[in-house]
Amino acid sequence: MIKTDILIIGAGPTGLFTVFEAGLLQLKCHLIDALPQAGGQCSEIYPKKPIYDIPGFPEVLAGDLVNNLMEQIKPFQPGFTLGERANTIEKLEDGTFIVTTNKGTKHHAPVVAIAGGLGSFEPRKPLIDNIKAFEDKGIEYFIKDPEMYRDKKVLIAGGGDSALDWSIFLADIASEVTLVHRRNEFRGALDSVEKVQNLKNLGKIKLVTPAEVVGVLGAEKLEGVVIQKSGDNAEEIMKEVDHFIPLFGLSPKLGPIGDWGLEIEKNAIKVDTFDYQTNIPGIYAIGDVNTYPGKLKLILCGFHEATLMCQSAYQRIYPEKKYVMKYTTVGGISGFDGSKKEAPKAIVKAID
Amino acid sequence: MIKTDILIIGAGPTGLFTVFEAGLLQLKCHLIDALPQAGGQCSEIYPKKPIYDIPGFPEVLAGDLVNNLMEQIKPFQPGFTLGERANTIEKLEDGTFIVTTNKGTKHHAPVVAIAGGLGSFEPRKPLIDNIKAFEDKGIEYFIKDPEMYRDKKVLIAGGGDSALDWSIFLADIASEVTLVHRRNEFRGALDSVEKVQNLKNLGKIKLVTPAEVVGVLGAEKLEGVVIQKSGDNAEEIMKEVDHFIPLFGLSPKLGPIGDWGLEIEKNAIKVDTFDYQTNIPGIYAIGDVNTYPGKLKLILCGFHEATLMCQSAYQRIYPEKKYVMKYTTVGGISGFDGSKKEAPKAIVKAID
Repeated sequence: MIKTDILIIGAGPTGLFTVFEAGLLQLKCHLIDALPQAGGQCSEIYPKKPIYDIPGFPEVLAGDLVNNLMEQIKPFQPGFTLGERANTIEKLEDGTFIVTTNKGTKHHAPVVAIAGGLGSFEPRKPLIDNIKAFEDKGIEYFIKDPEMYRDKKVLIAGGGDSALDWSIFLADIASEVTLVHRRNEFRGALDSVEKVQNLKNLGKIKLVTPAEVVGVLGAEKLEGVVIQKSGDNAEEIMKEVDHFIPLFGLSPKLGPIGDWGLEIEKNAIKVDTFDYQTNIPGIYAIGDVNTYPGKLKLILCGFHEATLMCQSAYQRIYPEKKYVMKYTTVGGISGFDGSKKEAPKAIVKAID
Repeated sequence: MIKTDILIIGAGPTGLFTVFEAGLLQLKCHLIDALPQAGGQCSEIYPKKPIYDIPGFPEVLAGDLVNNLMEQIKPFQPGFTLGERANTIEKLEDGTFIVTTNKGTKHHAPVVAIAGGLGSFEPRKPLIDNIKAFEDKGIEYFIKDPEMYRDKKVLIAGGGDSALDWSIFLADIASEVTLVHRRNEFRGALDSVEKVQNLKNLGKIKLVTPAEVVGVLGAEKLEGVVIQKSGDNAEEIMKEVDHFIPLFGLSPKLGPIGDWGLEIEKNAIKVDTFDYQTNIPGIYAIGDVNTYPGKLKLILCGFHEATLMCQSAYQRIYPEKKYVMKYTTVGGISGFDGSKKEAPKAIVKAID
């Protein structure tokens, strides 16, 4: 059982910044996210896209924003349960909560902060009959650890940035990379399309287009796929592979959280703007996942909501204590790791 | 008469970021500030201090944050009335406002956003009988344009960072810099104290301590000051100077805004959290100057408040139009200066 002060569901920018504001109040955080890495959409969907409306950044790449936030929260040593989806919640008699993921990991905390964005990102799966039987046995929808593919025969399907970028990345790791797409045309950054073209010319990526994977084969684990080529050279071919990675995009789903008894309006969780608490005391919702009159789904709003929420969480956890806010410019930052950051102190010195 | 869409009172971080969010909605902004430069406290009081709680910045100097915000809002070409304090407001029959400064500059806008921080910063003035008679005639409490002091005899009074830093800066510009402080000890950054010590040793700054300026003399304009030295060599000396700059710190005062008929609570303006509007429709209050249940006086909260406020301002200015928010990551930024920033477009290209 993982124990923490604030259990944050969703490790996007809002969830990450919560760790910082909680840390200033000496509260510890643990984050759960269905994606294999922190950063939410910013890392998974558009890490190389510039964002222009983060205050103080005329321009920042989404991936860099996430890196900056990870650096900012580092002193407060957050825990992470990644690649798992928060499935069920149970309220104990003492008012604390136990949240269990789809893989059975249990988390115990007095406060739960849902920072789930548009929901947990579920991969779009190809319509192949027995595909479920091979999931995690050679078929993966996310790449968690590229090393898993070292010296393996890998087949990637898809025509967007993810398919292009992972094909490029794995070309140096896997023994063989095959890229299958149902059209000849790919849609992505110019740079990525050109790199795949070069790697194809060098024989480092095999390209099969226009084509689709229509069958998967194997005994204990995946051993091969059936590819249906279309167009002038239409034919069905069998190909031996160790891994099949369909990268057809992700679609966000509110998912199991929708069944937790929270008041939902238009696929978002209703909260009070005083502290962004839901109808269940002790469960808060911050960032794109919540709704209230005037709500804007912007990262900068999530930062504000996280900050006010932490004050309320503190009161819930320590009802007897009165927290007096100190400005970081004045008091600095004291990390849980013993680190201390503060402004250089003024000195008092005679000039003679 | 200066005309704009949103007249912002206060050019601190919150006021500055308002220009950006208004700009996304194609609304123009003009800012009034009592200080001689943009940035509020961040520029005037602690430009070299690190702030640790701006989301996405593990550490940022207050002055750099202001520079970044100025860069971020540049495409939206804000106007500035600096070194003047908003004094009076008049609501016209059509619901628009005229705001007049202490120097008589008039501004006309359908929306007024008060982003006044802790209030307008008023200098602490030395208690010298006829000092008022020489204000702006040789006595200045702020340095607006250092060039004004070129080849002049300047006397600075004070013992903190401002007095130290301006003495250092003017040592290369003025024909003579004298620094007077009532103690021998100065309180400031180690680096600044050491620089002043060096410049004093080099004869580029004259130091008179412990001492106070107790009188000012002149006919049309300032011609000299009377310095009372204390301690072992107590004596009164007359010194010819062109400029006397007392830098005794600033104290924030809500000032004339307190008489505008706004609901005030604990020196802050009460607002609704839906859109941060005050009790007077069309006047909003954002950032440290406002109050509501759960309010935290943090820069990041001001950013959020400014953003929601702009949506409401848009509705007020264009009641017939419906604004559909576009993400900057998707739509980019279109500046009023014709500039355009946007993410590199994805291409659709065959690989053969």
